[in-house]
Amino acid sequence: MIVLNGGSSSGKSGIARCLQEVLPSPWLAFGIDDFVAALPLSLRSSDEGIAFAPDGSVTVGPGFTALEAAWRAGIAATARAGAPVVIDDVFLGGPHSQQRWRTSLTGLDVLWVGVRCEAAVAAGREIVRGDRARGMAEKQAELVHEGVVYDVEVDTTHAEALECARVIAGRVG
Amino acid sequence: MIVLNGGSSSGKSGIARCLQEVLPSPWLAFGIDDFVAALPLSLRSSDEGIAFAPDGSVTVGPGFTALEAAWRAGIAATARAGAPVVIDDVFLGGPHSQQRWRTSLTGLDVLWVGVRCEAAVAAGREIVRGDRARGMAEKQAELVHEGVVYDVEVDTTHAEALECARVIAGRVG
Amino acid sequence: MIVLNGGSSSGKSGIARCLQEVLPSPWLAFGIDDFVAALPLSLRSSDEGIAFAPDGSVTVGPGFTALEAAWRAGIAATARAGAPVVIDDVFLGGPHSQQRWRTSLTGLDVLWVGVRCEAAVAAGREIVRGDRARGMAEKQAELVHEGVVYDVEVDTTHAEALECARVIAGRVG
Amino acid sequence: MIVLNGGSSSGKSGIARCLQEVLPSPWLAFGIDDFVAALPLSLRSSDEGIAFAPDGSVTVGPGFTALEAAWRAGIAATARAGAPVVIDDVFLGGPHSQQRWRTSLTGLDVLWVGVRCEAAVAAGREIVRGDRARGMAEKQAELVHEGVVYDVEVDTTHAEALECARVIAGRVG
Repeated sequence: MIVLNGGSSSGKSGIARCLQEVLPSPWLAFGIDDFVAALPLSLRSSDEGIAFAPDGSVTVGPGFTALEAAWRAGIAATARAGAPVVIDDVFLGGPHSQQRWRTSLTGLDVLWVGVRCEAAVAAGREIVRGDRARGMAEKQAELVHEGVVYDVEVDTTHAEALECARVIAGRVG
Repeated sequence: MIVLNGGSSSGKSGIARCLQEVLPSPWLAFGIDDFVAALPLSLRSSDEGIAFAPDGSVTVGPGFTALEAAWRAGIAATARAGAPVVIDDVFLGGPHSQQRWRTSLTGLDVLWVGVRCEAAVAAGREIVRGDRARGMAEKQAELVHEGVVYDVEVDTTHAEALECARVIAGRVG
Repeated sequence: MIVLNGGSSSGKSGIARCLQEVLPSPWLAFGIDDFVAALPLSLRSSDEGIAFAPDGSVTVGPGFTALEAAWRAGIAATARAGAPVVIDDVFLGGPHSQQRWRTSLTGLDVLWVGVRCEAAVAAGREIVRGDRARGMAEKQAELVHEGVVYDVEVDTTHAEALECARVIAGRVG
Repeated sequence: MIVLNGGSSSGKSGIARCLQEVLPSPWLAFGIDDFVAALPLSLRSSDEGIAFAPDGSVTVGPGFTALEAAWRAGIAATARAGAPVVIDDVFLGGPHSQQRWRTSLTGLDVLWVGVRCEAAVAAGREIVRGDRARGMAEKQAELVHEGVVYDVEVDTTHAEALECARVIAGRVG
């Protein structure tokens, strides 16, 4: 398994798609955005679920956390059943988020990847995307990496997603 | 768990979203379209993966089948970890598709739901959607139900998705 | 030209796509949603632009109104340049909205179409779509038709989009 | 008016969105992709309309060309009616495409902008996007600029969309 962690608009999903292209065998790609899309609408913008504040900060409530744990268990089971999986996530809880994944992924071979991007550049890309709550990119750029331990780190500030994917693929099995 | 089976453009995903709205507790909703979106591009239109013929027939190859089995295992694990899950799928293999889900979902309480829609009406809705390969709705309308056993059947030909969801929800728990 | 007017989730865009399918020559289809997507983000949810209240009511400000008039002029010019155009709009201003279109479309042959849908049914379809502010369907179901004069009216409460499109196409040319 | 011309995946739409953000007054943004989306499905992949070959080359037929001329007339009328408009297009016909716009935009003040991106980098971004026919980025990278005359040129190979937008905005009005 590969777990990509980075702030909003740091380029994780793009790297995941490129990894699927450059890795020699077929990998499945899932992301935290897929999990959010699977939630009932009532949890997609509420204190019980996930809430996006006007300043770009994101908070999650108990309804979100409980279902997210089950989703992580499902991703782990997909990998244990033999499908290579690349995940992209935003470790809002930093090392606690990583620990939760470690617990779910027990027994699996995991490559931990930090996807960095300078806050100002990520904020610019947030404008380019046009569909994201503003301010998330800047708020999360440093925050999600604090206390997290990686096998590889890439930085999309000056490198293309495809280049980053090649670096990561070079570290896979 | 709830498993919705129906042909393309029969209205499964809409019913799933309505179920999330009418069920009293939060359910996760996943579908076969999410699985296809998680595949590498190389498997999204190829004989090894999934292939869409101009006449609307769909065939899947060994690369698709292997990863799909792992995905089903993951969905089952999500449900076993405590998250109620509604799945929408297209049983291209009829009873064989159902048997594969039965095997994956062993030990879980499953409500099997048939989502029917007259071929001509589904074909019209395929035009409305505008993003689907033509002909799938008509080809699949009967095919996917042959030999499949349900706890509940709904028909979207004349009933709205929300009404169908209420019927199904009445059979849950 | 064909102008479709109806509330949110009444099925206008689907009818437009079906019209493109059933009309013998190629028609362009544009809608008010395309105009909103062309606005700067700052006008897409603000009092100066367009604002969506939690109860489903929609208000537009002077920035929106000025650019919308220019957009209508552009649509009229497209039609005058020889392209048949089907428009879908939501006449929030009722007869005033229609008058604005009449002024823009001076000299063009226009088929005015009312797309009705019972409020409760449209509200259900709003849930199915999953990407719309809640409450708009119900608020707009009657409102947008008050005082508006049509050449044809269709009702998607019990009729499919494709059937409605055939009725409308029968009145063209 | 601003007309952005560049190959597929060169970053035109992102620059357009950033321009809407950095320009002091509200601008409308339209693109050739919007025009294609407004076509009937039958023209969206056919010799009569627009056709995408497996090698990434794109050809357009008479049905496309006729409606496109009407669309350009509509964009011009929108601008003449007082709305500032930024357009992104792909000049498959090079100077002929530019001449067609010049004719449509007679009397309007136009800033012609070339959006360049090295072929290899654009090809990588095509993979990242995941929704584009492969090969277009590489095929079009040089082709669309041949014989075209600009007021400003930007290069997204090493510059972010937001930086490019600031350079362009500095040349407006």
